Amino acid sequence: MTRRAAFQGAPGAFSQVAATQLLGEPLVAVPTETFEEVFLSVVNGKCGCAVIPIENTLHGSVHENYDLLLKYDLAIRGETYVRIVHNLIALPGVRFDAIRRAYSHPVALNQCRRFFEENPDIERTPFYDTAGSVRMLVEKNMRDAGAIASAAAARIYGARILKRSIEDDRQNYTRFFLLEKPKRRRKYSKPEGVKRFKTTVVFTTKNIPGALFRALSVFALRDLNLTRIESRPLRGKPWEYLFYLDFVGHADDTVSRNALGHLGELADMLRVLGCYPAAE
Amino acid sequence: MTRRAAFQGAPGAFSQVAATQLLGEPLVAVPTETFEEVFLSVVNGKCGCAVIPIENTLHGSVHENYDLLLKYDLAIRGETYVRIVHNLIALPGVRFDAIRRAYSHPVALNQCRRFFEENPDIERTPFYDTAGSVRMLVEKNMRDAGAIASAAAARIYGARILKRSIEDDRQNYTRFFLLEKPKRRRKYSKPEGVKRFKTTVVFTTKNIPGALFRALSVFALRDLNLTRIESRPLRGKPWEYLFYLDFVGHADDTVSRNALGHLGELADMLRVLGCYPAAE
Repeated sequence: MTRRAAFQGAPGAFSQVAATQLLGEPLVAVPTETFEEVFLSVVNGKCGCAVIPIENTLHGSVHENYDLLLKYDLAIRGETYVRIVHNLIALPGVRFDAIRRAYSHPVALNQCRRFFEENPDIERTPFYDTAGSVRMLVEKNMRDAGAIASAAAARIYGARILKRSIEDDRQNYTRFFLLEKPKRRRKYSKPEGVKRFKTTVVFTTKNIPGALFRALSVFALRDLNLTRIESRPLRGKPWEYLFYLDFVGHADDTVSRNALGHLGELADMLRVLGCYPAAE
Repeated sequence: MTRRAAFQGAPGAFSQVAATQLLGEPLVAVPTETFEEVFLSVVNGKCGCAVIPIENTLHGSVHENYDLLLKYDLAIRGETYVRIVHNLIALPGVRFDAIRRAYSHPVALNQCRRFFEENPDIERTPFYDTAGSVRMLVEKNMRDAGAIASAAAARIYGARILKRSIEDDRQNYTRFFLLEKPKRRRKYSKPEGVKRFKTTVVFTTKNIPGALFRALSVFALRDLNLTRIESRPLRGKPWEYLFYLDFVGHADDTVSRNALGHLGELADMLRVLGCYPAAE
């Protein structure tokens, strides 16, 4: 049976690109309007899995998705990185010098500042999302406008790329998670041939000096390497923080299990959000 | 002489609200289009100071501004928190049932989802920024549309608030920094009567297990309390990270000086971005 993966945005969104990277073809990518709907699609069984952006090199974490990982009981089963390439896209047959406006999400427009400086006759026009702006061009048969979006969006809507890779900064990557319902029998799968796993946890500590230091000691004293840590204020509890942490290791390995047990002693709350093959 | 503070956005943006909170009146708030222009305004002496958003409770860090803090040699001299309250704003005399569209930045529109669900006749219409959408209403004399923005934006453009506080989540705060040129003689000021200071630093560590743990030990072993830590991949250097860290203490206190000296031994790069009165 073909897998169904929920993602937020219009068809052709970068989340769909990530879903194809993670799951291959054939794949039914199911678009939703909000991130919460993405999670609910898996919770209520409408989709077997979901793909969410979690972190962008230029913009940082997608905190809404970290919150939703806490709210819903889904497991992270994979990660991937997608380079964000913005293209100027128009209807077939439309020439570059016919373009008077370019539609896209404001974040994408701002990431193509140099392009607009070099082409002052093209007006930056904000729209809801990147891929959705290509769909609008096609639906309204707009022949004096372009859209800024992924190559996948051009392909899906039968539009053409007029200028490739017009983003200012090539170091623009987004990290995506693959989510599924947690398994009952065995908590973490361990596919053969995977050399390197990552485990993502979230925990809270008491607001006392050195609390984070002690929490990190459970990894440092066992030579476990952290690849990411982020703190976030706990809503409604000033001075208390949530920590999200990724470490290299499979959650069922003895050393990881011991570290997590030790962390459980120190933390007020601890949840393993998932264990998955490392993408890099 | 009246102080001049640069900020990004249109007059009435939340950054201007933060500037007034930090600096009081009289104040000349100087709008710019980009965050980089905000920094340059202070570097080239056009403005004596600047106010930038650094972190939002729902959306996380404004990484672009952390990058700019590294790129330009400005000092953090203050912090403040602004609660983000979204209001439906229209021209004077326009009644609520005349509103067919509401303009705002997509992030603001998405933070008022419940309002749009309860008012399905009002179309969500993306625009560049919150305050700028109020200005547009006024400039174009739009009597069938509203804008979603701060109360300050309504006041500045002579518009009226039709519905107050239509945001879904009241726990929506943004933290702002006040920036100035660093002083030559004395690195960090210590105003009388301030009980609590914070110091913000950025550093890199070697990518070895336990590097962050050792870095944090310089604070933990001296009972210095961290209030925020965030890691970020170093651009162009996979597997190496920048850490941003806030701790409670004045950078010129002996214990802080010792901790920073110790951190300097362990870190590849260390910079104190500023020392300032703590807002909470």
